[in-house]
Amino acid sequence: SFDGRQSQVAAALQRGVCRTLRALGHSVVAELPLANGRRADVVGLSPSGDVLIVEIKSCLVDYRTDGKWHEYLDYCDRLYFAVAADFPCEVIPEHAGLILADRYGAELVREPAETRLSAARRKAMMICFARAAALRLQHHLDPGCGFES
Amino acid sequence: SFDGRQSQVAAALQRGVCRTLRALGHSVVAELPLANGRRADVVGLSPSGDVLIVEIKSCLVDYRTDGKWHEYLDYCDRLYFAVAADFPCEVIPEHAGLILADRYGAELVREPAETRLSAARRKAMMICFARAAALRLQHHLDPGCGFES
Repeated sequence: SFDGRQSQVAAALQRGVCRTLRALGHSVVAELPLANGRRADVVGLSPSGDVLIVEIKSCLVDYRTDGKWHEYLDYCDRLYFAVAADFPCEVIPEHAGLILADRYGAELVREPAETRLSAARRKAMMICFARAAALRLQHHLDPGCGFES
Repeated sequence: SFDGRQSQVAAALQRGVCRTLRALGHSVVAELPLANGRRADVVGLSPSGDVLIVEIKSCLVDYRTDGKWHEYLDYCDRLYFAVAADFPCEVIPEHAGLILADRYGAELVREPAETRLSAARRKAMMICFARAAALRLQHHLDPGCGFES
């Protein structure tokens, strides 16, 4: 369901979401592999340790062909969908958050229901997030540091 | 006490320490500001969430003029000093860990006494580490994302 055009749209939305999350005080990691084998498009970490996941949907087909978004709920306190302004938002369930985005920024249109992580799962997610960010950063700063990415 | 030569030595040791910590399974962040106003030279995070701090000492003068290393003990499970092979290691207290390093790698010569972080302090350190890594990474990937570094 993904062609090049849709990938470009998704990348643009992702950048805008990440910029706005940063402006709101979150740190972010994109394309974070989760323990269940799924990969979260954007994970945000608040200064107090709250974890949010944002799934980017480039178009309705992209949304409809990804039936497994419930699997992200177990890995965050709040789950959002981020879409472009022309997306038919009524298809997104009301208990998920809604973000309208473009490549320059994003607007939080609807806050989702909150389902708090257990302390153990939160610790595991923070380690996962921290390691991904630090390993990728080190790879940028010292490309000879290893073979991981 | 720092001239350009000593800064270069410290940067080389830091790179070697970070490479070897990565090879040992840790993720690392350099120059991490702590809640007490100090700045840790290298912080390592293990896959299970253990936190270690490595203080880089480029020479004996550098070691002797930094009298406050006890202040790092409250922010890690294990504290190490990393020095070059020609450093007079006998001045380093035995309850601190010892790492010999060059710009390509490092060797853990002595494990330190372990003082485990409380759960609350560990969470705070993981958030601090995760945020620094993620904010710096985002800045590398998207230089227009903000004004922080």
